[in-house]
Amino acid sequence: MRCRRCGDKAVLKIPRHNTAVCVACLNHYVLEQVKRAIHDHKMFDPGDRILVAVSGGKDSLSLWDVLMRLGYETAGLHIQQGIGHYSEESHRKTAAFARSRAVELIVHSLQEEEGAGVLELAELTNRSACSACGVMKRYNFNRIAHDRGFDVLATGHNLDDEASRLLGNILRWQEDYLAKQAPALSATHEKLVKKVKPLYRLAEREITAYAVVNSIDYVIEECPMSVGSKMLVNKEVLNRLEADAPGTKHAFYFGFLERQKAEDLSGADEKIQSCARCGQPTTAAVCSYCRILEKVKTAP
Amino acid sequence: MRCRRCGDKAVLKIPRHNTAVCVACLNHYVLEQVKRAIHDHKMFDPGDRILVAVSGGKDSLSLWDVLMRLGYETAGLHIQQGIGHYSEESHRKTAAFARSRAVELIVHSLQEEEGAGVLELAELTNRSACSACGVMKRYNFNRIAHDRGFDVLATGHNLDDEASRLLGNILRWQEDYLAKQAPALSATHEKLVKKVKPLYRLAEREITAYAVVNSIDYVIEECPMSVGSKMLVNKEVLNRLEADAPGTKHAFYFGFLERQKAEDLSGADEKIQSCARCGQPTTAAVCSYCRILEKVKTAP
Repeated sequence: MRCRRCGDKAVLKIPRHNTAVCVACLNHYVLEQVKRAIHDHKMFDPGDRILVAVSGGKDSLSLWDVLMRLGYETAGLHIQQGIGHYSEESHRKTAAFARSRAVELIVHSLQEEEGAGVLELAELTNRSACSACGVMKRYNFNRIAHDRGFDVLATGHNLDDEASRLLGNILRWQEDYLAKQAPALSATHEKLVKKVKPLYRLAEREITAYAVVNSIDYVIEECPMSVGSKMLVNKEVLNRLEADAPGTKHAFYFGFLERQKAEDLSGADEKIQSCARCGQPTTAAVCSYCRILEKVKTAP
Repeated sequence: MRCRRCGDKAVLKIPRHNTAVCVACLNHYVLEQVKRAIHDHKMFDPGDRILVAVSGGKDSLSLWDVLMRLGYETAGLHIQQGIGHYSEESHRKTAAFARSRAVELIVHSLQEEEGAGVLELAELTNRSACSACGVMKRYNFNRIAHDRGFDVLATGHNLDDEASRLLGNILRWQEDYLAKQAPALSATHEKLVKKVKPLYRLAEREITAYAVVNSIDYVIEECPMSVGSKMLVNKEVLNRLEADAPGTKHAFYFGFLERQKAEDLSGADEKIQSCARCGQPTTAAVCSYCRILEKVKTAP
């Protein structure tokens, strides 16, 4: 198999684009797709300071790597969830990545800052681990990015993530979530920071290949809490459809974005206010974060 | 397992309704769901003459059976496709069903009327067998129903059929098809007959159970041409999602119908005209049927 761009030995087939690429052209392809994502959705400008949410997995570390290669000013933010060996490995690999590139890494430990890890927070509040983790991540991502003066928060969501999330939302027609599912969400409150997903044009296996050929040392293990999650079932199902008809995920998610653009679903009608306790943006009177923390404080 | 309605021995679990039913209550359930479908979508009235498209499979024969039990005036229409043993068996079982109930069955043979079976028509026109079959069925269903003065044509599409068709249309965002996917399509041209799908509220396994407990002798074999079809892949994928979360298909299709109602997608803006050759309704100058038949006439 030869690279369709330069004729060298190919390392990756990309069936949905009917092409194959060598190592150099894979890097070119990934960088071009990210540049196009940034441009098409006006994600950020050259002077902006970007906070990259890094879990230690292939997606977030590759995103950070790409943004640095493209010359952007970045720092990383890692949330320590406190899920045993998985979280320790994630922190270790994230820190090693930052050190090797001499870039700033902000580490936020739930155990130290909130007084409890994700599993304990979930138990105290009768939520699933994924739900408690989601609240902690969204809250801290936004607050830290805002307080430290970053212009934008970037996450490593890829095409597979977005397509499977879209499938989940459409199977149950969750209009509110559909309206908010976009590669870039602008700041609709003074304490909200803009959120962007520069990898949305790239499939999971393309990013894995990028991480491997660039020797990015990432955590391979999946989060042990994600076993049996709806997200994984939706991904499995989309992989089955993709195998049957390459390009299905792409057509599904990009077709949705086209429709969204035509209908101008900006989600601007959502009422965002300040939390009565912490002052952070929320759609409720008291935000989910504060309601979870209340339980920690009153725990026996 | 006991019937949730009467306490008798249950023969079928219906997880999405969190219930289980015995033979008598299964029949009650099926009849009630069909009555509700007819009522909710104003499919037809007691005095109407209904032509039931019958392939010989569990869905169409069960539909015919149910409509007769509900006291409607029906006749069956069977298209002989000429796909070897499968078509012979289908015709045989359909004819036996009609005979046993002393109801009229109209049989239309493609070989005799159009001069070629589905496989030959497909080859002559470079279409897939499913595409050629679809054109022949739609055309003859409508023409025969209209010419013989029926008020409505009923087909045996069930919830699984509609959900998997919806999934296929949404994965590629086929707006035109989405607008036309409804349990009842009114006649928007003087030569068009109203089309209805009275089984859309019932899952495939519920109809199979109905056919079995009522000793309806149907063709179990799937059409040999459908192997590997997108429809079957979509069904497989929906079954996987349904196993993970019972009620997924129902929520997906019914949620779509709710949205469709809210948006009033009646498909009324579609331009239907008369075919320049045969006078039947079509969106093109010459209809697909006539374009296929042209090839039969000019074949060497």
